Amino acid sequence: MEAILDAENQIETWQEVTLVYNAALKQMNTRLEILNDEFQHVHQYNPIEHIKSRIKTPESIVKKLKRHGYESTIENMVNYVNDIAGVRIICSFSSDIYRIAEMIRLQNDIRVVAVKDYIRQPKPSGYKSYHMLVTVPVFLSDKTVDVKVEIQIRTVAMDFWASLEHKINYKFEGKAPEYVKTELVECAQMVSALDSRMQGLNEEIKKIEESAQNWPQT
Amino acid sequence: MEAILDAENQIETWQEVTLVYNAALKQMNTRLEILNDEFQHVHQYNPIEHIKSRIKTPESIVKKLKRHGYESTIENMVNYVNDIAGVRIICSFSSDIYRIAEMIRLQNDIRVVAVKDYIRQPKPSGYKSYHMLVTVPVFLSDKTVDVKVEIQIRTVAMDFWASLEHKINYKFEGKAPEYVKTELVECAQMVSALDSRMQGLNEEIKKIEESAQNWPQT
Amino acid sequence: MEAILDAENQIETWQEVTLVYNAALKQMNTRLEILNDEFQHVHQYNPIEHIKSRIKTPESIVKKLKRHGYESTIENMVNYVNDIAGVRIICSFSSDIYRIAEMIRLQNDIRVVAVKDYIRQPKPSGYKSYHMLVTVPVFLSDKTVDVKVEIQIRTVAMDFWASLEHKINYKFEGKAPEYVKTELVECAQMVSALDSRMQGLNEEIKKIEESAQNWPQT
Amino acid sequence: MEAILDAENQIETWQEVTLVYNAALKQMNTRLEILNDEFQHVHQYNPIEHIKSRIKTPESIVKKLKRHGYESTIENMVNYVNDIAGVRIICSFSSDIYRIAEMIRLQNDIRVVAVKDYIRQPKPSGYKSYHMLVTVPVFLSDKTVDVKVEIQIRTVAMDFWASLEHKINYKFEGKAPEYVKTELVECAQMVSALDSRMQGLNEEIKKIEESAQNWPQT
Repeated sequence: MEAILDAENQIETWQEVTLVYNAALKQMNTRLEILNDEFQHVHQYNPIEHIKSRIKTPESIVKKLKRHGYESTIENMVNYVNDIAGVRIICSFSSDIYRIAEMIRLQNDIRVVAVKDYIRQPKPSGYKSYHMLVTVPVFLSDKTVDVKVEIQIRTVAMDFWASLEHKINYKFEGKAPEYVKTELVECAQMVSALDSRMQGLNEEIKKIEESAQNWPQT
Repeated sequence: MEAILDAENQIETWQEVTLVYNAALKQMNTRLEILNDEFQHVHQYNPIEHIKSRIKTPESIVKKLKRHGYESTIENMVNYVNDIAGVRIICSFSSDIYRIAEMIRLQNDIRVVAVKDYIRQPKPSGYKSYHMLVTVPVFLSDKTVDVKVEIQIRTVAMDFWASLEHKINYKFEGKAPEYVKTELVECAQMVSALDSRMQGLNEEIKKIEESAQNWPQT
Repeated sequence: MEAILDAENQIETWQEVTLVYNAALKQMNTRLEILNDEFQHVHQYNPIEHIKSRIKTPESIVKKLKRHGYESTIENMVNYVNDIAGVRIICSFSSDIYRIAEMIRLQNDIRVVAVKDYIRQPKPSGYKSYHMLVTVPVFLSDKTVDVKVEIQIRTVAMDFWASLEHKINYKFEGKAPEYVKTELVECAQMVSALDSRMQGLNEEIKKIEESAQNWPQT
Repeated sequence: MEAILDAENQIETWQEVTLVYNAALKQMNTRLEILNDEFQHVHQYNPIEHIKSRIKTPESIVKKLKRHGYESTIENMVNYVNDIAGVRIICSFSSDIYRIAEMIRLQNDIRVVAVKDYIRQPKPSGYKSYHMLVTVPVFLSDKTVDVKVEIQIRTVAMDFWASLEHKINYKFEGKAPEYVKTELVECAQMVSALDSRMQGLNEEIKKIEESAQNWPQT
């Protein structure tokens, strides 16, 4: 909890908050780029398809605090809103998700605060994604602050589904008609089936390739 | 054919080819960004999810010329290799594909040379994508050259499938085992089913929204 | 005047203005990048050191209209504020300035509306820079609009001076103490002297190089 | 010396070298961006005008090793070539140079290995610039490597001069005619005089501003 308290004591104004969380996003993006380059160099394969990052708007932060019964103060925000800085990593196959999560976990100055594995345990809506709450050190001119960043890792198909779900939630403010919800759940099942078939095919190819290399060359 | 002959007469060295096709890609990307911004402004919606662009490597160009029985000359390259400059546009729904194609067609200095609609008529492999061969004017210091650019438009799901197919073709040099090909065709069907369900859901939401706006406000 | 009237009739809201001028800046930047790449290819030399571009803020636009006695309407803005979209090109030597201006002038769909050569005729403050007011065509989905862009071309040394002058004007709102103004004028003279010495040296080197190539190789 | 030995033991191939030094440049650029944003937030002023970074080409590395009598091995390269990864920071005033150097020095995981202050003690050629050799930690998937980066900090005017000097050295391979060298030295003196006048003027304005704020508001 130290890092979080740390930030709480040291960040005072909204502008400073934006500055510090933006810096954390920049640091995180640079880290991920470096890991992706290294992976490409070692395995001739990019686990990361692309990355998006965003700072939560002041409106959304205030809304979230209200929903959870907190006053809108910088302190509450830094303590209770975990996704002020958010990074979304999109990859091709589910197996990449755990590979990327592992690479992040092994970085020795990044601290994993919490993990929610919505791949193994999808939400009732059908939502699948791997969430990590981490802290990353940000080096300011006179201090180092550990800043919380929420990382979401998912496949392209999961991301496509999640965009549509988000749009629906936004439009109906969470109260979508029952048949729309049912349809969404069924689409999520199709996404999972497709991801699993495609990953199976990808692994099949690797196997053929490896066994080919084991044959004696005559 | 004028634009193409034009280019043939005016481009002389490999370095100049790279320069001119790179310039065409830059022009095309700028055009698409502007159209996307405008669409976002008018419809509050980005039809384009993301864009990738690439110049064909000299090795691939030479291979393609050889395959079609042409000598490796600048002239043959400019005349017979249509995808030296390639732009890939990824969007969320199939309906976006035709919307983007139409926007490109309406640009009054872009000339559409050929269209292949692999969405309505997929390849036997299961490949789906909308291909346009266009020319875009590139303004050099002393002349204007119309340069060929191949545009591929597809959904995220089609793109995911196409990446795996490309990998398989590359590894087996076109001679993948029969059961791998069959599996790929079945995955393509799942992609189409998913795209169609997701697009149906997206249209359903729009309809609910519109009918809500038509109700008298009491 | 047609292009300008054109824009006036077709642009209606502030958001649309921003959209269109931003598109014009993107187009202009792409054009300049292409010209710079071409120049580098032909002459093994980049005339452009770097480029900055900006959209004038609504506040500055309103201020400028007021200063000239116009009401704050979209129409007045499009007609009377010429630097809503501004591009600044920084180069190494004064000779590059005229070379770049010439390359822009030769682009056959860019129209030069006006030129102010503050290099040959510096402002009393000591300000030196080459200004071009041009229109560049922007291709929207259903129409093409010629949009005004102000281009300022200057050397790194002139740009350094101009930044400090801008800061002084901003702080003293145009009413700087007399001795500050005098000091600025003297600095401008040093800038000119330095630019001229450096350019002279650059030309000297080219001459030595050329004469070396003309010697018989024995 | 530990960091350097560290790298030597852990980096084995040229591709890995490129990977690691590129990662170091990315890290360093991100750090500097964050420091610049923070400075802008606290002082309403950007000390950094712009940043350039580059990896030394294999050819230049081999040349440098040869010049110093070393064999071309990865080990020698990592140990004896300090500027494989180079960052150049350009700022407006000489006073910014020391401010930036101080901010870098205070970063608690960056180690300053060596400093050469060619501002206080210019080279005989007239060259002025502030050089720092630092190590920055790069987090790879299974280890952290401290990588050497050479940082050069200079004003826009010094940078302009240094570009021309570099061009001259490159063309004449270090053997420029005597009068060209003399001319360069005199230009360097003009650069220093201009920088000092401009910085004086900048400080003058700050003083006027501060004394204005101290006046009683009546």
